[in-house]
Amino acid sequence: MSIESFFSDNIKAALKNDPPGEWMTATPDGCIRLNSGYPAPDLVPVQQLKSAVVNLIEKEQDLPFHYLGSPKFAKLKEQIQGRLADRGICISKEELLITSGACQAIDLVARILIDKETFVVIESPTYMEALEVFQNYTQYFISVPVDEYGLKTDCLAEMLEERKRQGQTLPRLLYTIPTHQNPTGTTMTRDRRQHLVELAIKYNFLILEDDAYGELSFNKSPIPLMAIDQEDRVIHVGSLSKVVAPGLRIGWVAGAKELITAITWLKKDLDHPFAQATMATYLENINFEERLKILRTKYHTKCTVLISALEQYFPGSVSWYVPEGGYFAWVRIPGVDTSQLLTQALTEGVSFVPGKHFFLDQKNGTEFLRLSFSYADEKEIVEGIQKLGKVVTSNF
Amino acid sequence: MSIESFFSDNIKAALKNDPPGEWMTATPDGCIRLNSGYPAPDLVPVQQLKSAVVNLIEKEQDLPFHYLGSPKFAKLKEQIQGRLADRGICISKEELLITSGACQAIDLVARILIDKETFVVIESPTYMEALEVFQNYTQYFISVPVDEYGLKTDCLAEMLEERKRQGQTLPRLLYTIPTHQNPTGTTMTRDRRQHLVELAIKYNFLILEDDAYGELSFNKSPIPLMAIDQEDRVIHVGSLSKVVAPGLRIGWVAGAKELITAITWLKKDLDHPFAQATMATYLENINFEERLKILRTKYHTKCTVLISALEQYFPGSVSWYVPEGGYFAWVRIPGVDTSQLLTQALTEGVSFVPGKHFFLDQKNGTEFLRLSFSYADEKEIVEGIQKLGKVVTSNF
Repeated sequence: MSIESFFSDNIKAALKNDPPGEWMTATPDGCIRLNSGYPAPDLVPVQQLKSAVVNLIEKEQDLPFHYLGSPKFAKLKEQIQGRLADRGICISKEELLITSGACQAIDLVARILIDKETFVVIESPTYMEALEVFQNYTQYFISVPVDEYGLKTDCLAEMLEERKRQGQTLPRLLYTIPTHQNPTGTTMTRDRRQHLVELAIKYNFLILEDDAYGELSFNKSPIPLMAIDQEDRVIHVGSLSKVVAPGLRIGWVAGAKELITAITWLKKDLDHPFAQATMATYLENINFEERLKILRTKYHTKCTVLISALEQYFPGSVSWYVPEGGYFAWVRIPGVDTSQLLTQALTEGVSFVPGKHFFLDQKNGTEFLRLSFSYADEKEIVEGIQKLGKVVTSNF
Repeated sequence: MSIESFFSDNIKAALKNDPPGEWMTATPDGCIRLNSGYPAPDLVPVQQLKSAVVNLIEKEQDLPFHYLGSPKFAKLKEQIQGRLADRGICISKEELLITSGACQAIDLVARILIDKETFVVIESPTYMEALEVFQNYTQYFISVPVDEYGLKTDCLAEMLEERKRQGQTLPRLLYTIPTHQNPTGTTMTRDRRQHLVELAIKYNFLILEDDAYGELSFNKSPIPLMAIDQEDRVIHVGSLSKVVAPGLRIGWVAGAKELITAITWLKKDLDHPFAQATMATYLENINFEERLKILRTKYHTKCTVLISALEQYFPGSVSWYVPEGGYFAWVRIPGVDTSQLLTQALTEGVSFVPGKHFFLDQKNGTEFLRLSFSYADEKEIVEGIQKLGKVVTSNF
């Protein structure tokens, strides 16, 4: 008996679009991890989280261990509403749902909105996990390039107009990381944000705004798309993974009430009272603005160290965008296949993510690589780039 | 603009089958909760969980707060393998996936196996949350009655043979809670278990075994269906919600490797390192068999108190099954609509779940109600049944 013969048609199609097993190369122990999109270990508030969980249990006893009933657990939504309001997004509790990280939020939105024949617009390059999620629902994508000013909305406008003119299906959803994008690190300008929201109205699509890095600008935070949108076209997902810690799995989705109601109904892992109440207690105990200031300063320093090292150790023909926030820098090495480069780099003791993983058509990504300055410390960053520079140089 | 116009066809159909908003009546404060399927507050191991989380953080520092990398987190799968092996289920790591409670496991299995036209066999009555999950994927169900010996496999055999004879679609999946079923509290006999597995082979369907109460037998635990199955027809879901605490959201699904691989790929909330590592530390620190002994004794006592109170305070025409484990007792009050009874009961200060919620065709459940002896303490149970008995008597 083959269990696959029992799989639903949707799943058979999804597994065909996006076959399991293509995990990325594991990073060997001792390797300098310029691949990891993890927060810096010394920026994980270990002691404060420990105090929070101890306070919580002492105060609430069994309550955070039940399905419902923890008073702290109920606070988390308010705290996130507050954070969103600080960024210009004013929403009610019915327009907000806590999820297990941004990734679950993206999956739930995709599940609600995408049919087998739905066209989804994605940035090129884009966050690979999101791309995988979408590929579980559809195989129809429109890739729009990203440059140093974010998604090229003029290209998007042309593509949409051309599709319309030719009577082709128009997209239902566009997925973007407008601020400190993964993987390019670039940020959409205010003008392009405005343009994008106008295009959504004109061509009748929804925008899924992934704001995972939105609070990690080194200088002024850009306005979220949701704060520009006047008619519920933007669905906003966010997360505390990058600013507190990913292991608690706290993210959210904000959007039109009807959408949030539908998502809530379909989300069958229920809530996570222990993790959510721990996070709420932690947030209550700290000054979040102070924490953000520290994070921004530290990541800015690490980013500067990375860029200086690139300038020092990489050949002149290699180019990159200079990040203004977030976790990542995007590097182009003309004429070099970065997947092959990775094998050599791992031997030297440094890791990165080859650019191809961020493209629908992986051929477009062979010359690129993503470097993360979040996880490795400053000394490791310099050492890692030095090693990598040696490998790159040997390929010219 | 209406956001619903963007919903996928599947979701539109699901929302039609299973419209949001039909939540059960909330229990007023101060009410005796004979409705809650929660563990008893004094059986939640608050101090041990606190020690576990403190130990974990002191030992592993930032590791359980990242996406990966916590050594304890990696232990949990082994511990669950061990518990399953004790019950006669021998599976490899590739055949097991940790989920956020049994409910997420059921949803993921449903998502993999159910098409819009798929027939699913359910017990009548059955666990309402599971029924809701299935209704998000299909509207075709075959209800098979449950009696004091569990699912009536002879009825099932007749129904399947009749469908086959008439050339009707045969089911792809059967969902059962064979041990201390929710809501009836009854347990499938060994003969019926064997018969069910044979029927799955003969009529080529899969069995989803929900074993949430499988470790809570007052006497000997029955053999799980998965331990009888010789050809990967049984998918087994379980949970630590009923034997440790639901708030950590630890469940699992065990099944054929290809199924688990597909589920892992589709499960986009990722893992929950903090909660899973906390649970693993707790399990390592305690003697689980000792804990189970205590739970079984306490719940047995509470169940005995409930049944005695029913005998004392309920009219002679009311009947019930005497549970041999689990959390629930199932009561029939001939000629009384238990939904209307609930309104009166809440006024008196006691709560239960009306039987209709556990039936696909809610009309079949009007005379029944589910009582939980897990959450309320013994004094409350007696007082609650006394109050409820008064309300019931006034309806004759």
